[in-house]
Amino acid sequence: MRNINEDTITQAVIAAMVDCNNPRLLTIMTSLVQHLHSFAREVALTEAEWEQAIGFLTAVGHITDDKRQEFILLSDTLGLSTLVTAQNNAKPPACTESTVFGPFFVEGAPELSLGADIANGACGEPCYVSGQVRGLDGQPVAGALIDVWQSDEDGHYDVQLPTACGEHEHRARARLCTDGEGRFHFRSILAVPYPIPHDGPVGRMLEALGRHPWRPAHLHFMIVAPGYERLITHVFRDGCTYLDSDAVFGVRSTLVADWVRHEAGPAPDGKRSPVPFYTLQYDFVLNTAAAQEDRA
Amino acid sequence: MRNINEDTITQAVIAAMVDCNNPRLLTIMTSLVQHLHSFAREVALTEAEWEQAIGFLTAVGHITDDKRQEFILLSDTLGLSTLVTAQNNAKPPACTESTVFGPFFVEGAPELSLGADIANGACGEPCYVSGQVRGLDGQPVAGALIDVWQSDEDGHYDVQLPTACGEHEHRARARLCTDGEGRFHFRSILAVPYPIPHDGPVGRMLEALGRHPWRPAHLHFMIVAPGYERLITHVFRDGCTYLDSDAVFGVRSTLVADWVRHEAGPAPDGKRSPVPFYTLQYDFVLNTAAAQEDRA
Repeated sequence: MRNINEDTITQAVIAAMVDCNNPRLLTIMTSLVQHLHSFAREVALTEAEWEQAIGFLTAVGHITDDKRQEFILLSDTLGLSTLVTAQNNAKPPACTESTVFGPFFVEGAPELSLGADIANGACGEPCYVSGQVRGLDGQPVAGALIDVWQSDEDGHYDVQLPTACGEHEHRARARLCTDGEGRFHFRSILAVPYPIPHDGPVGRMLEALGRHPWRPAHLHFMIVAPGYERLITHVFRDGCTYLDSDAVFGVRSTLVADWVRHEAGPAPDGKRSPVPFYTLQYDFVLNTAAAQEDRA
Repeated sequence: MRNINEDTITQAVIAAMVDCNNPRLLTIMTSLVQHLHSFAREVALTEAEWEQAIGFLTAVGHITDDKRQEFILLSDTLGLSTLVTAQNNAKPPACTESTVFGPFFVEGAPELSLGADIANGACGEPCYVSGQVRGLDGQPVAGALIDVWQSDEDGHYDVQLPTACGEHEHRARARLCTDGEGRFHFRSILAVPYPIPHDGPVGRMLEALGRHPWRPAHLHFMIVAPGYERLITHVFRDGCTYLDSDAVFGVRSTLVADWVRHEAGPAPDGKRSPVPFYTLQYDFVLNTAAAQEDRA
């Protein structure tokens, strides 16, 4: 293994993995090395460009912490997240479609009761959200755990606001549990379009590519229930400017819903809202878990 | 751009770059996206594997600092560095060949006089290195700047030993300048084989792949002179165990040289060495700079 050149290096790297005893890892790394090398050959990558790439990845790594995940942003903006989501979530058409996870989920959101105001001080116009979680057979899924998270009216998730929030103070983020009829309802704030964090290397990449960083208004959901496939998805707000140019390629027509505006007056919680408010009604249909096991 | 699926995502990402005004960047990113997506499709990458990849890259980013460059290690161990080096350094056969840069170069090495002991306290058997820098026409290159760096006998570069060295204390690392006849000589320590840093994510990757982390004994050189192409290379020690299984695929036959062992006695610096010592004589032939400009 001396005198390896640009033609023989790929086979040399693959040959070096001969003792790998993890067949799946071997498959993945063999393909990765082949495609990575093909890319470098195809564009005749220069040493200066390689140095820039090392610098870029280093910057992505250094801006990433437990509150900011720039590698997920990178995957999202390069369409890899949508590709992986799509190829792993083929479902019967009656099921709610999946979309990208995004970088803003955090473990340990507060577990709130149905009807709670999950905004917890996050700024925005009031919005009342309700719906039902069902299985493919139409049966309600009682006790489903729903994680919901969204940005405030300035486009910021709580984790992006370390100075405005206490370390453990969650805003516009909660975990709820469906009732005996699979139903849920909560109060939050209106979803608005926002740019993905673009003050870091991924933002500089988008700018250099002539791309905007905006996402259409949406609400994130992750729903888990025994016997059902985990659902990670968004509900998008109809009429939003960026539905056809989502920076992370996540929009599905079936996930676009009406946010209905109401003037000040009686609200779904039985009280009188002194300001205009919105309502969103959206039902989710979970795939059965067996399908997931078949796929794995 | 709604309802993108695993078949249409690649074209959607490429279409989003329509306003990019940097043709070279557009070429690179188009190819990168195509190959990255082809990889994910070919292996049918799962969401759990994608999460592992995000976690791996995050770990690579977090262990990287101004003393440790895990992304370069990753590029080196996946053969990308050798590929980029090879495809950018086609030279006339009479020139000294290039090899990988590695992660241990640092700017600002001490500028020492010819004959200096660059070890500066680094442990190892004494070694006297000498040679000449010439152009393709055989003419000596006076005033060439030579950066040289190597590990100590334990396989550690100075930058890997923050507690043993002062922050700015360099060991077994220096910048020298050739004399009027293009000649150089210095004292250092014997080069030994060593494992690349394998206590981080790249080490875990190698272990999972059944690969060892060892590099054959070598001395790093970077030589810069006006009118000549910058040369980044190693000189490898003949007879070393890992010459045929270098963890970073960098060995070239023309870069393998004899380190000659001598018993205690008269040394090349005119003094008497009380212990056995080694000598290495190696000449470098630089390519002319025009060739580099043609290639760019």
